[in-house]
Amino acid sequence: MKKLDSKRQILFGKNLLRIRNEKGLSQDEVAARCRVTKGSLSVIENGGRNFSFTTLLALAKALEVQPKELLDLDFDLN
Amino acid sequence: MKKLDSKRQILFGKNLLRIRNEKGLSQDEVAARCRVTKGSLSVIENGGRNFSFTTLLALAKALEVQPKELLDLDFDLN
Repeated sequence: MKKLDSKRQILFGKNLLRIRNEKGLSQDEVAARCRVTKGSLSVIENGGRNFSFTTLLALAKALEVQPKELLDLDFDLN
Repeated sequence: MKKLDSKRQILFGKNLLRIRNEKGLSQDEVAARCRVTKGSLSVIENGGRNFSFTTLLALAKALEVQPKELLDLDFDLN
């Protein structure tokens, strides 16, 4: 997996974790609210894997944020 | 595939097509700018399949928009 992709997944994961903590939700609670397992959530928060568009929407719903907020980051695309 | 996921993929695809047209870019030009094939781009624009987080970033880069702009939609998550 390209280094840049990994860097961006880690950035996304840290932001996801920050939002979850801000909301005072555990991984179990987020997993219970959507069809993302606790194990997958943990790996995604650690930037350890790619994930789908529909998983991103499911996480946004579980965290009660707009999907675009999960991408409100500088992914250094240039 | 769940009906809601399909509806959201179609919504995303229409927005992607709108942005590409606004930028005056062909599918070939977008495909040439990133590692998303013309065929995949066409299917995604038609809401015909799920796609990954890194593909979303690649499309944002190719279209020269921030990734969050591709999700600036009402996905009716509730």
